[in-house]
Amino acid sequence: LDERALLEVVKGIIGKDCCLDDCAVFSCNGYELVATTDMLHTSTDFPACMTDWQIGWMSAAVTLSDIAAMGARPLMLLLAVGLDRSGRLHDIMKGAEACCISVGTHVAGGDIDNHHELTIVSSGIGYAKKGRIVRRKGSRPGDCIGVTGVPGRAQASLSGYREFDRSLTEPKPRVPEGIALSSAGATSMMDVSDGLSFSLYDMIAANSCGYSIQSSKIPLPHGINPELALPMALYGGGDFELLFTIPAGSLPVQGVAYTIIGEVIPEREVLLDGIPMEKRGYEHTWDR
Amino acid sequence: LDERALLEVVKGIIGKDCCLDDCAVFSCNGYELVATTDMLHTSTDFPACMTDWQIGWMSAAVTLSDIAAMGARPLMLLLAVGLDRSGRLHDIMKGAEACCISVGTHVAGGDIDNHHELTIVSSGIGYAKKGRIVRRKGSRPGDCIGVTGVPGRAQASLSGYREFDRSLTEPKPRVPEGIALSSAGATSMMDVSDGLSFSLYDMIAANSCGYSIQSSKIPLPHGINPELALPMALYGGGDFELLFTIPAGSLPVQGVAYTIIGEVIPEREVLLDGIPMEKRGYEHTWDR
Repeated sequence: LDERALLEVVKGIIGKDCCLDDCAVFSCNGYELVATTDMLHTSTDFPACMTDWQIGWMSAAVTLSDIAAMGARPLMLLLAVGLDRSGRLHDIMKGAEACCISVGTHVAGGDIDNHHELTIVSSGIGYAKKGRIVRRKGSRPGDCIGVTGVPGRAQASLSGYREFDRSLTEPKPRVPEGIALSSAGATSMMDVSDGLSFSLYDMIAANSCGYSIQSSKIPLPHGINPELALPMALYGGGDFELLFTIPAGSLPVQGVAYTIIGEVIPEREVLLDGIPMEKRGYEHTWDR
Repeated sequence: LDERALLEVVKGIIGKDCCLDDCAVFSCNGYELVATTDMLHTSTDFPACMTDWQIGWMSAAVTLSDIAAMGARPLMLLLAVGLDRSGRLHDIMKGAEACCISVGTHVAGGDIDNHHELTIVSSGIGYAKKGRIVRRKGSRPGDCIGVTGVPGRAQASLSGYREFDRSLTEPKPRVPEGIALSSAGATSMMDVSDGLSFSLYDMIAANSCGYSIQSSKIPLPHGINPELALPMALYGGGDFELLFTIPAGSLPVQGVAYTIIGEVIPEREVLLDGIPMEKRGYEHTWDR
């Protein structure tokens, strides 16, 4: 049973619309608020090379990235920390606070518990003016497909390319990029933390169109043979870049480092160089 | 090192004001929003008698109780579930959703992970009109000290009085009570989940006055020898009642089951029947 199968159980109870986006969305007096929560723990989320400061940074970054993916501005972060050793708390909090400060927000509260295995849950709230939230749903045939930064760098680090270690351990949530893309008219958006392939298949599930991308246009980590680097970008996890769609007429978007990698198509399929793309990526599994 | 000592580490990093209340508070366009997060897991929070449905209910209740303690109305709940077995998810979600519905809100999203030990983090957001948030700080000498319901019932269950089991396993967050007390003019409030004693000492830490209560006034669980029941109310954990202060002139508060158990005093001490009260209660400890 994988994460996406478990999501079906959840949808049956709390409703399907609750599970379509990186954040839950609700209205508050002319603003739209978004909220999201992410659970991380040692065995599956924190490679052994990570310092406690980086673990704190990462825990904040996953949640801030979800807020960024909605085109929202973060309001605050809450951190629930299940500690295996109490001495770790200081550096974890420092790292989380540093990540928050880097995108103009802060840790506003949390909870502390003891735990057999270090477990951190970060929850975040963000806001945007009415109509400025960008969801996964909203892609229109003819829109350009874009991605910020260079996907595949986190996977490069996991594959042993040490020069990309900080991409894996200190990922930058793309908050200003998300806000700028929202302002520019992005029609749909999500983050690519499970890889480009999974993300495009998540997009198709939320829309009634399809996605066609060209491998030659995907920016790849420098200094790695492109034949090795391309699968990292397509199927590797751990990147915090934003995948978005936007009408060609809204380009270019000032102040954002992005690349157009393809086009939204009417047919309901995900194509890589014209042929159906393998649906594969970073995946949590249960009952192993 | 106990939870309160670890809080000092956190205060040094994110600021002292962040740790004074049951929730973080921030303003949004004429409203005040509150947010809180709570981590629970099998070994310390879920007695073996609990069903998965009750575990879900309890996980929602702790967070909704924190929102209630601010006099706020819950907007939504997020649930991050670290599952030891995937089959547990359905009943856990059902229980959490039932608790949310009982106080007029719902589960709006979350995260699922696999975990060695069942671990649930619920995060909630609530709101109130400007000026209607009740904090721990705000008690004034002469105010009455009140408590909702009957404290000590959860501890009675833990002590083997089976007739109180549902007080322990299906605690009711006092959301309507919190809102009514806020409207009536409560000057300070918190929930008593670590026991009356700890809660009064938490109140004194947030205020510049003291608290004097009378044991004869404390409502106690029925059918238990009062000599046994009183310590349950004072030092037992797991109750979700609200402890509050309110000017005598604002009484009675309609539609709320509460008891006045004492008075706010100018001296900075917590008194039980006129003598300093033992500071003791339910406490998580680390590095055992």
